[in-house]
Parts: sequence; C-alpha cells; structure tokens
Amino acid sequence: MAGGAQLLVSMLGELGTVTDEPGRLTRTFLSPAMERAVKLVGSWMQDAGMDVRVDKLGNLIGRLASDNPAAKTLLLGSHLDTVRDAGRFDGPLGVLLPINVLYELNRRGVKLPFHVEVLGFSEEEGIRFASAYLGSEGYTGRLQESTLALRDADGITVRQALEQFGGPFSPPKPAQAGRNLLGYVEVHIEQGPVLEAKKLAVGVVSAIAGQSRFKLTWTGTAGHAGTTPMMLRKDALAGAAEFALAAEKLAQGTAGLVATIGSLTVSPGAANVIPGQVVHTLDVRHAKDNVRKAALVKLGRLAGQIAKKRGLKVAWQRTQDNGAVNCSPKLTALLERSVKAVQGKSLSLVSGAGHDGVVMSQLTSVAMLFVRCRDGLSHHPDEYASPKDLAVALDVVIDFIERLAKETTAIR
Amino acid sequence: MAGGAQLLVSMLGELGTVTDEPGRLTRTFLSPAMERAVKLVGSWMQDAGMDVRVDKLGNLIGRLASDNPAAKTLLLGSHLDTVRDAGRFDGPLGVLLPINVLYELNRRGVKLPFHVEVLGFSEEEGIRFASAYLGSEGYTGRLQESTLALRDADGITVRQALEQFGGPFSPPKPAQAGRNLLGYVEVHIEQGPVLEAKKLAVGVVSAIAGQSRFKLTWTGTAGHAGTTPMMLRKDALAGAAEFALAAEKLAQGTAGLVATIGSLTVSPGAANVIPGQVVHTLDVRHAKDNVRKAALVKLGRLAGQIAKKRGLKVAWQRTQDNGAVNCSPKLTALLERSVKAVQGKSLSLVSGAGHDGVVMSQLTSVAMLFVRCRDGLSHHPDEYASPKDLAVALDVVIDFIERLAKETTAIR
Repeated sequence: MAGGAQLLVSMLGELGTVTDEPGRLTRTFLSPAMERAVKLVGSWMQDAGMDVRVDKLGNLIGRLASDNPAAKTLLLGSHLDTVRDAGRFDGPLGVLLPINVLYELNRRGVKLPFHVEVLGFSEEEGIRFASAYLGSEGYTGRLQESTLALRDADGITVRQALEQFGGPFSPPKPAQAGRNLLGYVEVHIEQGPVLEAKKLAVGVVSAIAGQSRFKLTWTGTAGHAGTTPMMLRKDALAGAAEFALAAEKLAQGTAGLVATIGSLTVSPGAANVIPGQVVHTLDVRHAKDNVRKAALVKLGRLAGQIAKKRGLKVAWQRTQDNGAVNCSPKLTALLERSVKAVQGKSLSLVSGAGHDGVVMSQLTSVAMLFVRCRDGLSHHPDEYASPKDLAVALDVVIDFIERLAKETTAIR
Repeated sequence: MAGGAQLLVSMLGELGTVTDEPGRLTRTFLSPAMERAVKLVGSWMQDAGMDVRVDKLGNLIGRLASDNPAAKTLLLGSHLDTVRDAGRFDGPLGVLLPINVLYELNRRGVKLPFHVEVLGFSEEEGIRFASAYLGSEGYTGRLQESTLALRDADGITVRQALEQFGGPFSPPKPAQAGRNLLGYVEVHIEQGPVLEAKKLAVGVVSAIAGQSRFKLTWTGTAGHAGTTPMMLRKDALAGAAEFALAAEKLAQGTAGLVATIGSLTVSPGAANVIPGQVVHTLDVRHAKDNVRKAALVKLGRLAGQIAKKRGLKVAWQRTQDNGAVNCSPKLTALLERSVKAVQGKSLSLVSGAGHDGVVMSQLTSVAMLFVRCRDGLSHHPDEYASPKDLAVALDVVIDFIERLAKETTAIR
C-alpha cells in the first residue's frame, strides 16, 4: 500500500493556485501561468529523479531511464492547461499521480525494466484557439497546417504563438517511434456520474466517444431595432437560436448523443441594433462514429433550412474531428486486474469526454483509469475527488506498473 | 433658398472621421473621440456667433442670444454619440444642420426675436451603459440615481465616469425652465423606408414610439459538454434561445410591435462547457403604450415558463422605459407649413426609433423633421442621406424659424 495520497493532494492544491486570472483557476495554452505550472511540475519531476525537458509545443516531458538502454518506454500523462474557472483535478491529476507513483517506487527501491515518461501536455481543453489537443498533436507529430492558422481572440495564430514561445517553428515529427513504446496510460477524473452511482473509487475506460467541433458563422443584416419591421429582418441571432434548439432536440432524441453550443458572440452587439452576425461553437459527441456522423449530416441540413427560410448565410468551419477510440485490450485487461486487486471489483466505462488518449492512440496503445468525482462535476471550481479515492488510484497504478514490469521481464 | 448643402455635407464628413475605433465610426459616452467631437462642433458653433459651453453630462450647448434679453429660447439639436460601426448622419445631422441654418440666417442679416440654443447631446444610443438618453436626461434634470449606478463593460458606473469627466457630481437641475422655452426641434434621418417609398425628401413626425429596454440574466448550471447527458442539463443558452424565438414570434404576430435581442453574452463561454449563464438585452417598441405593455406582460410570463420547464432562473432588470410621445400640435403644424412651402407636400410619420425628443418632451413642446435615408438604413457605415435632400431639410428649417419669428413678433 502507498499509504495515502496526502502529498498528491497537496501538490494538486499548490498547482491549483497557478492561474492567469486572479480569484479563479484558468491556465490556457502558452500563457504566463502555464509557464509557471511547467516550472513547478518540472521541479517535482526532478525530485522523482527524472530528466526534464519542454518541447516546441510547451509540453513538459519527464523521463526516468531504465538501466537497460534498449528497453521500451511506458508513457503516463495528461494535460496541464485548464478551462476558464476550472477545478484542480481535470488534467493535473494524470500528471501528478504518476510522479507520486515514481516517488513510491523509488522509496521501495524498485528498478523498472522499461523507461518511464511522464507527459504534461500544454493544451487539451481547446480554450484559446477553440481547438483541442494541440499538445498531444504536437507530441505525436500530428499537428496540421490548418490548425497552425487558427486565431485566438486577439487575432494571433497558433503558429505566431508558438514562435513567440520557442522561436522559428516547423511542425515536429513524432517524439517517439510507436515500436519503442509500451503504451500510454492516462488517469483522469470521470467527469460524469457513473462511478458515484456504482459506489466505486475507480473504473477502467473501454472507449472514448468520438467528437466533432465546429465554428458556425450566421450572417444576416444589421439594422435599427426600432424602425425595421419584424418581417423585413435578417436577424443572425434568431437563426442561431433556432439552430441551437434544433440541435438540442436532435441530441435529446438520439440515445447517447450530446450536442453543445458553449460559446456564442453577437455582432455588432448593441441593445438597439439587430444582430448582423453570430459566431458560435458546436460540439457533438457519441461513442459510435456512425451515429455522430449521421447527426452532423442532419444538423448541416437543419442549419441550411433555417438559413434559407430566414434569408441568412451560414458557414461551417470544422475545428476538431476525432473518431471514437477503443482502448488497448491488452493494457486495459492488465489495468482491470490491478483495479480488482486494489478495489475488489472493476467497472468498464465509456468516456463521454475527449482526452489526450484520443490523439495518443494514433501513436501507441492506450489505457485509461477514471477516478470518481463528486456529483460528476468538472470544468467547475467545485470539481472534487476525495483523498481516499486518490489513494486507491495511486495503488492501482503502482500495482499496474509492477504487473507490467513482471510481464516485460518475463517476455525478455 | 439656402443654395445647397455643400458645407453641411463636408462637416458631416469631417465629424464622421472622429472615432474611438480605427477604421470604423464609434463614439460612445465621454470617450476620447467624444471629447474631440465636442471641440470640433463647438468651434463651428463659435463660427455661427454662439456662446459655447459643455455641461456636467458632456452635452455641448451653443447659445445665440437675441437682442431682447427677456425673449424665450428655441432649442434645436440631437446627439453626437454613435452606435458601434455607425454611419455619419444619425445624431450629428440634427446638430450640424441647425448650425448651418444659423450661418445662412447670419448671412442674410436676420435678427431673431428669440434666443436659439443648439444642443449636441453626449449620449443617446445607450451603447456604453446599455441605457439611452443620458445626455438629454441630464439636460432636463431627469437623471435617476438608479441610472447613475449602471455599470459599463469595465465595471465603471455612470457616476464614476461622470466624476472622472467633470469632478464631483450631483444630478443637475433642468438647464432651462419650461416656461422660458418655445420648444425643441430635432432633425434626424428617418431610419426607415417610408419617405423613400413615398419619394419625398422630408416628412414631419407625429409621434415617437414608446420603448422599453431590459437586461435579462438566465442562470443554469455549467458542466462538461461531453459527459453531461442532455436530459440532465440546465443550459442557460438553450433557455435564452427559446425566449428569443418566443419574443420574435410574439412581435411578428402583433402589428407594429418590434422586439430585439441585440446583445448577448455566454458564460463561461468555452466550446466544451455547457453555458451556465447568459445575459442579453431586450428592446420592445410600439406606437401605443398599451400594446407595448401587454407585450411585456406576455414576455415576462413566457420567460418564466421557459425557465421553469428548464430548471433555470431568469432575472429581469429594466434599463429603459419611455412612453410613446406625441409631438406638439402647434410646432408640428408650423413645420408642416414649411415642408409644404419647400417640398410641395408634407407627410406625417410615426417614429419607430427613440430620439432625444422623447426626453425633451418632458421639458417642452417637441417637433421632429425626418430626412429620407437610402434603403431606410441606419446604424451602419452605409447610412446615407443625399446632399439634395439635406438642402431641402435646410430650407425647411430656415423657413420654419422665419415663420416662428414672424409669429413670435406678431404675438408680442
């Protein structure tokens, strides 16, 4: 037994104070707070005996080399950025827990027959550029030119931000060859209500739902709110509102489908001017790719019908598209054995949230451990996982690594 | 005949370059561009022989005294602030045209039997504080304490802005006693399509529609866009969207009613977070107060029903409330005679837009002259009134002042 999670809780607390916005936790891609977070977590990695570096994307990478230089590498990690007004667990847990695992293995004098890398990705939430996974896309060599051209609220492109951060930038090659990897393991709070309902501290993820994100732009005609009769209006906000309700209705009528408009801005945005333009996000997810794709076709048709009826134009820009990801049967089976050993029984879950594991699955095998969170709440300052549950998760990952070490040694 | 409006056109053009935002015309209450606009227009007033002052509200006031110190005062004016990305006519026309009228009367050596004040109000559009008529409310001594407590986007109150502008502030008394006034005459572009359809340069306003403005706040629960099932959501944006469509439908079904949501912001405002709060404006207008009030009752009930059904809270804050205003029969009859004399025939119009005349009607008799604008367009950089139509409006106001002078002399 690791004997509790006091240190992990305290590290989560300290990292939770590193923010770009006074009074609430917000850390976005390449922000000043992210730089401070990387320094802090990097120092904890060094305490675990790791070699620490930061790549061109701002990803924090700690490496604990095995005595066998020809060994493969096990990756563990998650992201260090947050949403606006975030909790302290979503992301950081998956970086700090593995560091604590290594502290414990060091304490026990365990020598591993594989290298371990702990990854703290610089971007997963998609806040600054409304496009997620910039960190893991960089790490896996999958950053697209179209992503580099996206602009933040100040008009700065991803490429410009990266060049301000690290000088001349060209999209990096994958940091690792897949054949040299044992896999990628991510620990994350569930962000949903299932573990709480089942009264379990942790569960094992079988698959991650596929996810599409878009930016929609509705264009009508601005005009005077007092003198333009209702029937002559081309109100961009009315079109967007009708679409928002149509998307909600479609998702409500399709089992397991979620559709969200989380960000919406109105131009010119004055009380006495009819909205001439509305820009909003659309986020659609489902565990089955064919269900998600069929929903997107329907939503495209609905938006077109609404625009035509109202004399508006609507333009779609795809900002994110990830197919559903099945976790590695082999790593997942091993992780389930560890969960059974520590918790008595295991539970298999589908993740409705996207995770760095989605992108990492294109490089290597992926497994994910979910930790119960209170009320299923995340992306909120009240986000909470209990020290007791964190201790269970710690013990599971220690057990998992020891099992993997035995297996790896046995194969050799 | 005044012989054309070249100088007026050129002054409108020059004032149209005085802006807070490079590349587009925006002048808001007490902004740096407003300060420059007041200096520029004040210098033109001085050229007309006026005494010029700026009051505690930032209103520009030019006074041309009659030889008879006991004479009454005729007020002419409009506002110098603009919406965002505005045209050059809405407001400034009603300030610059009277100055040009005085140039012409001076050229003709006309001595008036009354004082003339030209007013350039500092705030009419309600952009900065989502509350209109701050300038005329100050001039007429009708500024409310509740208005002084309104906050702009930076959290600054009206009172703080006024104290930064002019030092310690207490709500002013009316600048004039009503008994000393002949009335208030405002020249404004129509901002609607009627004069264009009737092929007339100018028309006379019979009444100004009543107008109510609110700030609505919808509060739900923020949550993860991927893991919160549709049926468990309390999405503030979905509630606001349903209300927007209900308001649109009510207005479409009520002759002459207009309802507009022009500004809307979503919190926290990230693509992957369900909106926890939405704040938006609501602007409702009708020429008959009882129709407008009945609509507001219905909208209040609809919002409550939508909130209840969705588990949301909705709060209303009234930011503006003006009853319909009937123009002065006497001044309007005189103005109609001038319009007939210059244009051959007159036309009576209801104004769907609010104007400073709404507030000024609480101090004195009001008359308004509308000038045709292309496509009925306003609050837009393409806003346009032709030099030919401006020349007609100039001639009408000159004729009106001469008629009023004759009448005043005759009464004396």
